[in-house]
Amino acid sequence: MRRHTLLIKCQDTKGLVFKISSILLLHQLNIEQNNEFVDKIHNTFFMRTEISGELDSNVLLAEVRATLPNDAEVKLCTQEKKSIIIFATKENHCLGDLLIRHNSGDLHANILAVISNHASLGNLVEKFEIPYHHIESEGISRHDHELKIIDLCRALHPDFLILAKYMRILSPHFVQNFPNQIINIHHSFLPAFIGANPYKQAYERGVKIIGATAHFVNNQLDEGPIISQDTIQIDHSYTWQDMQKAGRDVEKVVLARALKLALEDRIFLHNNRTIIF
Amino acid sequence: MRRHTLLIKCQDTKGLVFKISSILLLHQLNIEQNNEFVDKIHNTFFMRTEISGELDSNVLLAEVRATLPNDAEVKLCTQEKKSIIIFATKENHCLGDLLIRHNSGDLHANILAVISNHASLGNLVEKFEIPYHHIESEGISRHDHELKIIDLCRALHPDFLILAKYMRILSPHFVQNFPNQIINIHHSFLPAFIGANPYKQAYERGVKIIGATAHFVNNQLDEGPIISQDTIQIDHSYTWQDMQKAGRDVEKVVLARALKLALEDRIFLHNNRTIIF
Amino acid sequence: MRRHTLLIKCQDTKGLVFKISSILLLHQLNIEQNNEFVDKIHNTFFMRTEISGELDSNVLLAEVRATLPNDAEVKLCTQEKKSIIIFATKENHCLGDLLIRHNSGDLHANILAVISNHASLGNLVEKFEIPYHHIESEGISRHDHELKIIDLCRALHPDFLILAKYMRILSPHFVQNFPNQIINIHHSFLPAFIGANPYKQAYERGVKIIGATAHFVNNQLDEGPIISQDTIQIDHSYTWQDMQKAGRDVEKVVLARALKLALEDRIFLHNNRTIIF
Amino acid sequence: MRRHTLLIKCQDTKGLVFKISSILLLHQLNIEQNNEFVDKIHNTFFMRTEISGELDSNVLLAEVRATLPNDAEVKLCTQEKKSIIIFATKENHCLGDLLIRHNSGDLHANILAVISNHASLGNLVEKFEIPYHHIESEGISRHDHELKIIDLCRALHPDFLILAKYMRILSPHFVQNFPNQIINIHHSFLPAFIGANPYKQAYERGVKIIGATAHFVNNQLDEGPIISQDTIQIDHSYTWQDMQKAGRDVEKVVLARALKLALEDRIFLHNNRTIIF
Repeated sequence: MRRHTLLIKCQDTKGLVFKISSILLLHQLNIEQNNEFVDKIHNTFFMRTEISGELDSNVLLAEVRATLPNDAEVKLCTQEKKSIIIFATKENHCLGDLLIRHNSGDLHANILAVISNHASLGNLVEKFEIPYHHIESEGISRHDHELKIIDLCRALHPDFLILAKYMRILSPHFVQNFPNQIINIHHSFLPAFIGANPYKQAYERGVKIIGATAHFVNNQLDEGPIISQDTIQIDHSYTWQDMQKAGRDVEKVVLARALKLALEDRIFLHNNRTIIF
Repeated sequence: MRRHTLLIKCQDTKGLVFKISSILLLHQLNIEQNNEFVDKIHNTFFMRTEISGELDSNVLLAEVRATLPNDAEVKLCTQEKKSIIIFATKENHCLGDLLIRHNSGDLHANILAVISNHASLGNLVEKFEIPYHHIESEGISRHDHELKIIDLCRALHPDFLILAKYMRILSPHFVQNFPNQIINIHHSFLPAFIGANPYKQAYERGVKIIGATAHFVNNQLDEGPIISQDTIQIDHSYTWQDMQKAGRDVEKVVLARALKLALEDRIFLHNNRTIIF
Repeated sequence: MRRHTLLIKCQDTKGLVFKISSILLLHQLNIEQNNEFVDKIHNTFFMRTEISGELDSNVLLAEVRATLPNDAEVKLCTQEKKSIIIFATKENHCLGDLLIRHNSGDLHANILAVISNHASLGNLVEKFEIPYHHIESEGISRHDHELKIIDLCRALHPDFLILAKYMRILSPHFVQNFPNQIINIHHSFLPAFIGANPYKQAYERGVKIIGATAHFVNNQLDEGPIISQDTIQIDHSYTWQDMQKAGRDVEKVVLARALKLALEDRIFLHNNRTIIF
Repeated sequence: MRRHTLLIKCQDTKGLVFKISSILLLHQLNIEQNNEFVDKIHNTFFMRTEISGELDSNVLLAEVRATLPNDAEVKLCTQEKKSIIIFATKENHCLGDLLIRHNSGDLHANILAVISNHASLGNLVEKFEIPYHHIESEGISRHDHELKIIDLCRALHPDFLILAKYMRILSPHFVQNFPNQIINIHHSFLPAFIGANPYKQAYERGVKIIGATAHFVNNQLDEGPIISQDTIQIDHSYTWQDMQKAGRDVEKVVLARALKLALEDRIFLHNNRTIIF
């Protein structure tokens, strides 16, 4: 039987669960999994429901919307595979990890293409019969470089753009083209060490733990909503290059975990924070 | 406004959320927090709902029960402080941690008494003006020793018995007197190293991680439903005594976390497993 | 047999281990534990050696110094209990944790006194028969308040001042009086969330992990050398008050771990970083 | 300048560090990194020293051996790339992770071959131009199957055999052919859940944490010396299949970490335990 995921975000009022569940029951739909959360500070209600059964999306959506406050954001997602484009530069660990997951069927997504500002990862990507687009950034303005990428991405209709250690900063113009669709892995425990070479910054600060952060990209560098983070212990014997090597294992796992949450429609955005079910 | 927690466990069928939420709405109750889980393997539905508003417990319970399958287990808990009895032997770290939390008001419970088979912790407990019962186990049969403790506990009407490194094994007879009320902290990552001196066992096995497990006590030693676990990294330089010292910090935190979950009515028992919201 | 700890920090040159070990052998001393580290970037050699046997401290130190480069820092520490003064404000978890460890003999230190700018923890401290000094900060200049505390501390000759959630910022003048002797617990994963109310900052940034950092205090707020850090996972359901409560368990464990390292003479300071054996 | 690693294990006596460092100094060798450990219980001394400079291996080894107790085990390792053979069955995550590390140069080893009892991973391995040997186990005795593999491995002269989720139990005869050379990843936090389908066992036990263990293989199933372990938190919502998926990320990272330690000559074996520098 087909499954759908219903996502609801609206002002909290009495009776929401009753109203929504009564519609689902009328349509003879099964609730397979259900999560709710109320943000008391902003009086906002969040609900994610996996439902199974025969349904007419438009009818169901219309009924749900009609019963909810005017501000309600309602989405009904199918469980079909989403499509992603992966961005990388020279490091292969995050990209390679996604390719291996894709190869075994563990990654529930189509990889439409890999885009890079360097040629060096082409050989790896082509082994997996995935198109590799080397879009050179030298000898061209940043704006024109981005325009080429935007054109390519638009033609491919991705659900998400995954920055798998893509070492260029995206302009606000680029980001506005793909709102809430770009996921980045930052190689530090944000908000510590925003910006360039966080491992070098971490070495100089003498931290005893390093981390990685997967987040949506908005116009402020490294300041978008955080999806997933993790850390590992290090000690004084680590140079920043050692931290960089050790950090790769955290980076790739955190990015893959965040991508999985996005692909399963588990993330709500809310005031630069994420609600994750 | 008063808050209550409604706990429901029953066979899963279509319309449960609708039925329950409609009763809550009819009573004009607010849903402050709501969690559901369906165990697909056993087709069992779990729901925990924090509600606020004026209510008549008996009426509400009767209506909820009437709408649910016959096998339903329904509980309505108030948010009044629960009462606990702490058991200890000679080590002070778990007991002391609970006393400090109690002292600051962080522990939402009354400590009715501390019971020990040794005298040595009496001085600490009495600083906090909590009754300390040294019930000597030497020169008396295990059965008689337990009878004394059972009598004392029964007189005090505790909600939970907390074994905070109580180094004696409880008999099935004892356990049957307090079903699903006894919480133990075991100083290993269960089910590894069941039984005596787990740190010595861990040293000999050469593990690189040690842990602690808080669990309900049933008739099988160290085999009751697990509530909370945590681990820390160690290395070859740790003797088993070093492991024991390092392990104390995990033990006390894991026990306190499990107790907090129990005191907030967040734990369902289900086939020797716990569902925790 | 008595044990000593020899700490050496100097420019790295060939033959250091040979020179030092030959002196120890001539004195018929046993090496019980030995750690070395070379910071290649700054060409600095660090060595910590636990030795047992009969020794004349002055003679041994003179010989070791004579064989090392001129810049060498050499210390010979006995294993006698060190003395500490604990600073606190209103929260009892870090202070209480140290009191419980002290009560069982797990804390290898004398607690000379507890100093607070509030009266509220006096009752707890006095249970343990430790002097509690409530030094009021209201109605008095910051400078005069600190002078009172400096006078008191000087009279007591502590090895370390432990800021166990002392919620006042120390002036450079205060810090200069106790160089490399003040250890603070900061309730965030530094350098994230420097300054006031880090949990509120963390909530607003929407982090998925919170942490705590124990560090030496120098003149820059929250920027001294880090000794120990740890983190725990949280999620969107945590308010900043929930983070604060959950964070307490990390704070107290991280502070106790850092203090243990300091009491065992395991920490070298080096360019705002720590080398820890 | 060339680097070597000197590994020494012997009975502990006074003057060992002096004796060894004096030989190194006489040969004008630099100590780049040095670690020592004394197992007091068994009175055993361990030392790992990275040295740089011109040396004659035979002369140096002879002098070091002559100065040490008779039981001393001394090894001098070059920093040339070691060679490994990877064993796999059907899952690609551990194998794929090693292939990606190898592809970027992060794995300091030659992969001589991949051996599998199934054909399905051949396509992946051949992308990376590494020989894939499908050695069918059906229709052939276990003994004969192993003989084929032993012959193949012997012809290739590997330093280590890496069982990257190889789902067959090796006979004592097989293991004896490659003493202390076989490293396995077990998909549980050993010694919990020895044997088949540990995730199913973990589900039934209701654990709140799962883990992975990399260990040397000896004659007892899953009981060889542990090299590396790690754990992750799970909750009641995980089926054993969910645990299996989540566990893969721990398995691959723990295996890669253990392999790195082995390739850098950082592991001593000692009474079914490992000493790791």
